[in-house]
Amino acid sequence: MPLINRLVVVGVGLIGGSLAAALRASGACREIIGIALDSSTCERAVELGVVDRAYTSLDCVSAELCEGDVVFVSVPTLSVPEVLRQVRDCVSSEVTVTDAASVKGSVLAAAELVWGAAPSNFVLGHPIAGSEKSGVTAANPALYRNHRVIVTPLPVTDDAHLQRVVAMWQAAGAEVLSMSVAEHDDVLAATSHLPHAIAYSLVDTLAHDSENENIFRYAAGGFRDFTRIASSDPRMWHDIMLANKESVLKSLDLFSDNLARLREAVEAGDSGVLLGVFSRAKEARDEFTSVMAASGKQKNSHKD
Amino acid sequence: MPLINRLVVVGVGLIGGSLAAALRASGACREIIGIALDSSTCERAVELGVVDRAYTSLDCVSAELCEGDVVFVSVPTLSVPEVLRQVRDCVSSEVTVTDAASVKGSVLAAAELVWGAAPSNFVLGHPIAGSEKSGVTAANPALYRNHRVIVTPLPVTDDAHLQRVVAMWQAAGAEVLSMSVAEHDDVLAATSHLPHAIAYSLVDTLAHDSENENIFRYAAGGFRDFTRIASSDPRMWHDIMLANKESVLKSLDLFSDNLARLREAVEAGDSGVLLGVFSRAKEARDEFTSVMAASGKQKNSHKD
Repeated sequence: MPLINRLVVVGVGLIGGSLAAALRASGACREIIGIALDSSTCERAVELGVVDRAYTSLDCVSAELCEGDVVFVSVPTLSVPEVLRQVRDCVSSEVTVTDAASVKGSVLAAAELVWGAAPSNFVLGHPIAGSEKSGVTAANPALYRNHRVIVTPLPVTDDAHLQRVVAMWQAAGAEVLSMSVAEHDDVLAATSHLPHAIAYSLVDTLAHDSENENIFRYAAGGFRDFTRIASSDPRMWHDIMLANKESVLKSLDLFSDNLARLREAVEAGDSGVLLGVFSRAKEARDEFTSVMAASGKQKNSHKD
Repeated sequence: MPLINRLVVVGVGLIGGSLAAALRASGACREIIGIALDSSTCERAVELGVVDRAYTSLDCVSAELCEGDVVFVSVPTLSVPEVLRQVRDCVSSEVTVTDAASVKGSVLAAAELVWGAAPSNFVLGHPIAGSEKSGVTAANPALYRNHRVIVTPLPVTDDAHLQRVVAMWQAAGAEVLSMSVAEHDDVLAATSHLPHAIAYSLVDTLAHDSENENIFRYAAGGFRDFTRIASSDPRMWHDIMLANKESVLKSLDLFSDNLARLREAVEAGDSGVLLGVFSRAKEARDEFTSVMAASGKQKNSHKD
């Protein structure tokens, strides 16, 4: 008997399509249903074999859902509340509901707004994986293999629903970690949202420095790696920055203070401070690299 | 007849050793001589076939140098003045002298201090290439292939010496560009020194954020690329930041102002500003990538 009876993927883009493709490949689902606003996306998803059937609204399938089914919400961060409202109105509480949004505090707040209190069948999750590509045509059954998924269960979360979501991600090849909503949002602000803010700001700064019109002409490989994340989807990152505003501001302030101290050290010619910062950073970065290499994980993640 | 009679590499590390290896492979030099402070480095360089012979001081070979010979100074940025003093004292003005330091203003200032005014046989240059590895054992004849070298000739620079240096780099497979000393230092501050300062500061910030002890555990591929340059050699980057202090401070201030504006937009929830910055940055980054891809250049540069 498959792990999951029906998987309903609400939002059949890269993230939802890749989960569908991975679970189909592993035989973990009896049936996979796609929900997409755009009927041409529905047709494409069926044509590509990513889903068995597809509809433009969750209403169309809600009546047939039962225990053992999973509704996976993989829509843009700021569209999650609207989808949760549909889930509340038409999906029974036996069905497991989970999501993939990059910020968990805003999803929790939306759930509390929609239901009054977060329901026991809703498991908040975040796959730390992605690609510069997007859309159902980019769906990739290997996207989550050897990547991490963070779940942020609440005291109210029912263990059977939680374990179903954990098993689902493991079937897609991922390693599942658990932490609190607040910790998730702080950690992601520091390791992902802050670096994106910095990369976007740096590239925008250089692109508009009129004294250096052809400045990118002289940039080399290190610059290319450093700014790769500035090629990420602007709308998605707009949503993330606003959804995780408090943690992002905290990270930005911590970084800005440290950068200001480094600036003072450069101005003062303070070799001790400069060597201290550079050496500690190199040590931490080298340690991070060796841990990553040892685990063989996170090789192809761009949307993280 | 080879392009260069004798090449004297002062400082046989990655940069000097790789030029020697490239020119040996291309047959551009009649003879290659290494100068290294440490006699074991001299022995190793000869053993590896990177140089024909090696000495611990430039004095040992200066008497035999003549027109058609090139002295290549590839020592750490802050050691350049001491080497230029040796060049002044023992190398005749017919010999071409050039360097590889990442900052040109400080080298020019050193030359003016040593000679009174920069001599006509001294061609300032900077190969925009490198590696995370260092030392003569990392010498790689392909290091400069399809990479850029910037020369910053002065009004006093003799054209024959300049052309010999340009031809030397072309023989190593590089593309040679020319600009002023001031422009070089501004462009490199923006595209290389500033990103290194940011990456070091970010990694040091996160490594010492006591609230997030295992924070790197949750970092993914985007973070790895973004922070790769924080693994660069701390002493080298200490030297570069101090040698290019004015341009680095200017770049840091421009970036910090822009980041502060982005922070205000996040706090105010100003979607227009956020989408504007992110979209312009993505466009500039994508344009940069396509130009890089079209030229097939700068694929493996880390020290840049």
